[in-house]
Amino acid sequence: MTVPLHKPLAPDATIGILGGGQLGRMLALAAHELGFRVHVYSDKKDSCAFDVVKNSTCAPFDNWARLADFLNHVDAVTYEFENIPAETAAFVAARKPLFPGVGVLATTQDRVTEKQFVNSLKIATAPFAPVKTSMELSAAFARIGMPAILKTARLGYDGKGQVKLEKGDDLASAWRSIGETPAVLEGFVKFEREISVVIARGIDGKTVAYEPIENVHRDHILHTSTVPAKIPPALAKEAIAIATKIAKALNYVGVLAVEMFVAKKGAKRELLVNEIAPRVHNSGHWTIDGASASQFEQHIRAIAGWPLNSVKRVGKSVTMTNLIGDEVLGWDKLAKEAGASVHLYGKGAAKAGRKMGHVTRVKL
Amino acid sequence: MTVPLHKPLAPDATIGILGGGQLGRMLALAAHELGFRVHVYSDKKDSCAFDVVKNSTCAPFDNWARLADFLNHVDAVTYEFENIPAETAAFVAARKPLFPGVGVLATTQDRVTEKQFVNSLKIATAPFAPVKTSMELSAAFARIGMPAILKTARLGYDGKGQVKLEKGDDLASAWRSIGETPAVLEGFVKFEREISVVIARGIDGKTVAYEPIENVHRDHILHTSTVPAKIPPALAKEAIAIATKIAKALNYVGVLAVEMFVAKKGAKRELLVNEIAPRVHNSGHWTIDGASASQFEQHIRAIAGWPLNSVKRVGKSVTMTNLIGDEVLGWDKLAKEAGASVHLYGKGAAKAGRKMGHVTRVKL
Repeated sequence: MTVPLHKPLAPDATIGILGGGQLGRMLALAAHELGFRVHVYSDKKDSCAFDVVKNSTCAPFDNWARLADFLNHVDAVTYEFENIPAETAAFVAARKPLFPGVGVLATTQDRVTEKQFVNSLKIATAPFAPVKTSMELSAAFARIGMPAILKTARLGYDGKGQVKLEKGDDLASAWRSIGETPAVLEGFVKFEREISVVIARGIDGKTVAYEPIENVHRDHILHTSTVPAKIPPALAKEAIAIATKIAKALNYVGVLAVEMFVAKKGAKRELLVNEIAPRVHNSGHWTIDGASASQFEQHIRAIAGWPLNSVKRVGKSVTMTNLIGDEVLGWDKLAKEAGASVHLYGKGAAKAGRKMGHVTRVKL
Repeated sequence: MTVPLHKPLAPDATIGILGGGQLGRMLALAAHELGFRVHVYSDKKDSCAFDVVKNSTCAPFDNWARLADFLNHVDAVTYEFENIPAETAAFVAARKPLFPGVGVLATTQDRVTEKQFVNSLKIATAPFAPVKTSMELSAAFARIGMPAILKTARLGYDGKGQVKLEKGDDLASAWRSIGETPAVLEGFVKFEREISVVIARGIDGKTVAYEPIENVHRDHILHTSTVPAKIPPALAKEAIAIATKIAKALNYVGVLAVEMFVAKKGAKRELLVNEIAPRVHNSGHWTIDGASASQFEQHIRAIAGWPLNSVKRVGKSVTMTNLIGDEVLGWDKLAKEAGASVHLYGKGAAKAGRKMGHVTRVKL
């Protein structure tokens, strides 16, 4: 049983956010601009989203009493990370409108299920094979070829829980390195570039998609996102069509990001879906400064039952650069750069690989 | 004695804001984007800025124990309204860096002092005369002529504490209507249009000014602000020069707004300063969506000792429209308008004359 949202939330309603990282923080800021109150629920004491809201709850996601109390204080609920435990999502959805819905999490929390879902829509992915045992790994490797990437089916992000396999690598040690847990072996795609589409879908089923975004990763972590992406208009249209098809098939409400590879296929280019993120996405951060309305505003509008807003780009081009770990210590230099929009997440220590902030440069 | 700020605040510092209205709320949101923590101090229980910060204090401005406790938790302090009691400002400034400084408040809290200060810079105002008694009112009226406007010297805003006087009006009843309190009689200016300049000045004395803004009032409350203003380039330059001169003479740190009348003087136009607001200003709200960096970001940067950011306009033109009282009830219609940036302040009841939100339309 899930609770529906019968009418748009009035601006004095309270939005509940599960998760307290930078995405929750930026969602809360966008909700505040629209007049909403926000209650953040996170299991981490040092959640940076706690700092930007009056009301927050710090408790495990399976503390049903605290969760019930949280739900008594909110009018609709969303989440900022896709690894919400299934029982938590079901508990929430039974009591308050939850967007995106429970089914979305079931599909996207498991890489195998997600890829099968994408293929079922006749959308291409890299070749892949589910791997549950080390024996299956050998068979999968024989089928997929090499190089390939072995990824845990669940809970991986930013390159965590994955290992690249080249010819001659020891499969047994690779299997151990990812924890001998259900996984997927993916054929390694020699892509020309990586793009993503950030799309919002409203309760009424209408969608708005930002133009495709070109992404560059460093050490498996997003480094820069740039619009416009250097791809032909027809390919951009195709990318948006893919994201739209996925959002519709998921009966999605909120902002969804679809990561794709642009790969050469003979003289042509093809798009291979790499990953679906059922949430606002790092590659969409440029929209705060570089688009008419941000991805965070769109997400809040969608889950509040409001119509979506314009996705028009502001200026000629926009580049967002992540500040990872120590890079945030250069905030004083960035502060001196006129026209650079500095966003810092208020996190404590600048640990290696930690997303500490981002800077957006809009070319007007 | 006032405490100086020796070096730029690091992004994990806490900024204290005195006052909890929509200006404090939007300052807090801007501070959060830059990674700062914010502590709001307000004497009003239903302060809408409380909703967007983790830490707040609700106490009178002369509760020295609570104020001292607040100051123990912040690294620098600013205010969102100019009627901070002088003792409060002195108490704060003696303990933590306070921007804008105490002297600024002394000059701008009294209309007579403010106008004398402006004239001392050889900047024109409407003719005025201080009025302390009903006898002085007659003399002032004889000198200034009519029509004229009688305004309380202190604590007036949005047309409160003022009355227009026409020929034949009863001076005694006008004097009673404003509470028989020290006042100023101003000659009524038949202006062509009203403009304002929103300027930011950093701790290093550098200034950045947004282009002049054209303002339309309704019932003494700002209705719309539009850029570019329909004034010749030379006049725009002069307006910015006036604001710069004022900011410098005040040794100002933060965002300052200068309201001016554009009046015909024979075949020429002249600028008359109407009012100085030592804070972020309603006529600068368009900068959130319509400029490279917002007035709120500039103010936070200035009081944190950071360099200022770009004031470049985004798009061809921008119009901000206030949502006053009941107008906020039309939020559902505004939500449907693609490209309209809706900002609601999370205030409770839509009382007549209360600023409930604003909507910005950027023509890209």
